[in-house]
Amino acid sequence: MALKMEDIVSLCKRRGFVFQSSEIYGGFASCWDYGPLGVELKRNVKDAWWQSVVRERDDMVGLDSSILMHPKIWEASGHVATFSDPLVDCKKCNARFRADHVDVSAPCPNCGAKDSFTEPRNFNLMFKTSVGPVDKEDGSNIAYLRPETAQGIFVNFLNAQNTSRKKLPFGIAQIGKAFRNEITPGNFTFRTREFEQMEIEYFCRAEDAPRLHQEWIQARYEWYLSLGMKKENLSLRPHEKDELAHYAQSEASTGTTDIEYQFPFMSEPAELEGIANRADFDLSQHAKFSGQKIAYFDPERNEHIVPYVIEPSAGADRATLAFLVDAYHEEEVKPGDMRTVLKFHPKLAPIKVAVLPLAKNKPPIVEVAKRVKAQLAKKTMAQYDDTAAIGKLYRRQDEIGTPFCITVDFDTVEKDNAVTVRDRDTMLQERVALDQVEKYVLDKLDV
Amino acid sequence: MALKMEDIVSLCKRRGFVFQSSEIYGGFASCWDYGPLGVELKRNVKDAWWQSVVRERDDMVGLDSSILMHPKIWEASGHVATFSDPLVDCKKCNARFRADHVDVSAPCPNCGAKDSFTEPRNFNLMFKTSVGPVDKEDGSNIAYLRPETAQGIFVNFLNAQNTSRKKLPFGIAQIGKAFRNEITPGNFTFRTREFEQMEIEYFCRAEDAPRLHQEWIQARYEWYLSLGMKKENLSLRPHEKDELAHYAQSEASTGTTDIEYQFPFMSEPAELEGIANRADFDLSQHAKFSGQKIAYFDPERNEHIVPYVIEPSAGADRATLAFLVDAYHEEEVKPGDMRTVLKFHPKLAPIKVAVLPLAKNKPPIVEVAKRVKAQLAKKTMAQYDDTAAIGKLYRRQDEIGTPFCITVDFDTVEKDNAVTVRDRDTMLQERVALDQVEKYVLDKLDV
Repeated sequence: MALKMEDIVSLCKRRGFVFQSSEIYGGFASCWDYGPLGVELKRNVKDAWWQSVVRERDDMVGLDSSILMHPKIWEASGHVATFSDPLVDCKKCNARFRADHVDVSAPCPNCGAKDSFTEPRNFNLMFKTSVGPVDKEDGSNIAYLRPETAQGIFVNFLNAQNTSRKKLPFGIAQIGKAFRNEITPGNFTFRTREFEQMEIEYFCRAEDAPRLHQEWIQARYEWYLSLGMKKENLSLRPHEKDELAHYAQSEASTGTTDIEYQFPFMSEPAELEGIANRADFDLSQHAKFSGQKIAYFDPERNEHIVPYVIEPSAGADRATLAFLVDAYHEEEVKPGDMRTVLKFHPKLAPIKVAVLPLAKNKPPIVEVAKRVKAQLAKKTMAQYDDTAAIGKLYRRQDEIGTPFCITVDFDTVEKDNAVTVRDRDTMLQERVALDQVEKYVLDKLDV
Repeated sequence: MALKMEDIVSLCKRRGFVFQSSEIYGGFASCWDYGPLGVELKRNVKDAWWQSVVRERDDMVGLDSSILMHPKIWEASGHVATFSDPLVDCKKCNARFRADHVDVSAPCPNCGAKDSFTEPRNFNLMFKTSVGPVDKEDGSNIAYLRPETAQGIFVNFLNAQNTSRKKLPFGIAQIGKAFRNEITPGNFTFRTREFEQMEIEYFCRAEDAPRLHQEWIQARYEWYLSLGMKKENLSLRPHEKDELAHYAQSEASTGTTDIEYQFPFMSEPAELEGIANRADFDLSQHAKFSGQKIAYFDPERNEHIVPYVIEPSAGADRATLAFLVDAYHEEEVKPGDMRTVLKFHPKLAPIKVAVLPLAKNKPPIVEVAKRVKAQLAKKTMAQYDDTAAIGKLYRRQDEIGTPFCITVDFDTVEKDNAVTVRDRDTMLQERVALDQVEKYVLDKLDV
């Protein structure tokens, strides 16, 4: 019984993971907003990535460049000239289509006119705006919303290398929004016009690039597995020659390999992340367009070189969606009794532990429960919930993927000074002394 | 000897906190990029805020709405009509000025022409772009880059409240980029066209709003102090009647109070955060413009009400800059020997602990140092540095605000299996057993 996209969209809305942007105004442009749980889930995905690629490595540093950048950057990168889709207009009804998505010799899908299409014209996918109060004739006040975060890294290569004193090979990581004026966004948060990237540019000597390319493919693949993603849903796919981006087409590059995920509502595996060998394309282009010398002084060879770059480029929204779909389980607890449970890795779970008072009108129970919650909240993401009976609260926490529930009951305050800790996956309950429960839960979470 | 802005800009560039955006292209539009240390510092500021206003409270949830939203939202909010500056053009040279920044009866500051100014016209400060391949006649494909994150919260009020089941009073917090096409950006990262906000909309009953307004002013003021900001540099300033925004001008509102910081390079204290009482302005406007019923069902009164809202709205870039400036110290270590030290609160320090091998060519020392670094990196932000002699490395870590340095030396591997831990502020050194050093440092950091 394959999970349909509507089921995911519905769960996401019902539980506060993802809402349609501008919903009260009828929605807008395939944009989506992350709700109270979604924002935590996505933060956790991004934090896990940052922890893995920046904090636990000695050869990486972080960066956060602005979305608005000098327009020449997009000339140097090739985006002004080539980042476009071919469009045709129907001359009768003015509807516009991607030329490769319609049969241009057939009637218009909108109005039915025949032979009505214009010649294909290139439509640039960058959003454009202008900066400052005066339009300048040389276009220097034009700004594009960056279509990728990568270029913000390349133009900071010298500053980042100089201040961090890193030696080759080393990399720069960045998380941030990017924008593409897609003609056909879709598949929920999978393809949207506004999205968040997690990109690495890893600089190295040309001769090391093929080996490091393979190492990064492996490292990034294992990252998804380490956070609990099921191996059978992940695959690696090297790009065919004819689908390679311009920077990866040269003989110098070892191409691009995608990490793909089989979403249950798509017919084929779809890209979560691409790991490209961009050779020295970008730094060379920026040296040329800026007139600056952009090179690395290699102390071993005593010469300046333009490094090659390996680019593992992941989508934060896609990864978040894949982790959510992958965690989704429906289980028969006992005959006729189903539960929905999101089996998130503890690092990704939006709420790590829920503290539930068995009776919300008994001050001693409430007092203990609030104290336990406040104590845990200093160390992890804890939630206090008293808005339903305990059985319903357990199911609700299962459905949002909370690894542990702590229940404070009459025995806690009258007898044993202990609480019940329930495990999301096994549903087993264990009695733990109040003064041990923080350590017990934090050790099990290990986050 | 007051710190000049140039000193801060220079330190930020030299140590990798902040770089000019698009620097190799001559910079762009007063945009700035956060370098390897700046990105960590700003992340820490944002995480501390999130921890304080979302995770440690029971009455708050988070949200992350998109930057591109339905254009009607900005009609409802008043931004299309009123979010503008009056500009005048010089008819001779076409230079453009803010009408309130030039003497319109005097010669043009650019070309010297007299009586050359046009009548003032309103220049809207929202960046505009268009979405999708077709321009629509009703303007429904226009998108503004949001000038504040607040509206993304208001339009999600119903979804966030329904899914979180919060009762009044409760709030929604959001961190995200906003954009204003400022005529005169400046003061480094203090006023920029692209910036990041940390906003709270706290919904409550009308009669509770005055009290909660005061509580939030106090809570937010104390947050800055709790992260080590010096009290003498902070102040609270209620807005004068004539500077209140439209939503705070009604009798229903208790106005706006700013938390201000005295930057050493500004003549007056400047706003870090504004805490406004917006009354029921925003939810009422969105109900009107969307045609949807936006209300909260009050179970105590058994009626639907439109909540009031208290808005603590902080700038993440401004807070980051203030924490950096506030942490800056120059000290005479001994006669004639000065050091620069950033006395960051441990929660904010970009690097929490540096691991320094005394000799980088002695494999046993390097092996221990790398192991200690890897172990600490699982728990906190640790850095391995072997690129200079130990005295220089200490000063470098002082200048980036690292609370602790751990030095691995010959005694470590030959004699005592212990390391030297140096405290940034006291510069005292203590010998700590290798198997105790993680606990020793983490306890002292308490983060």
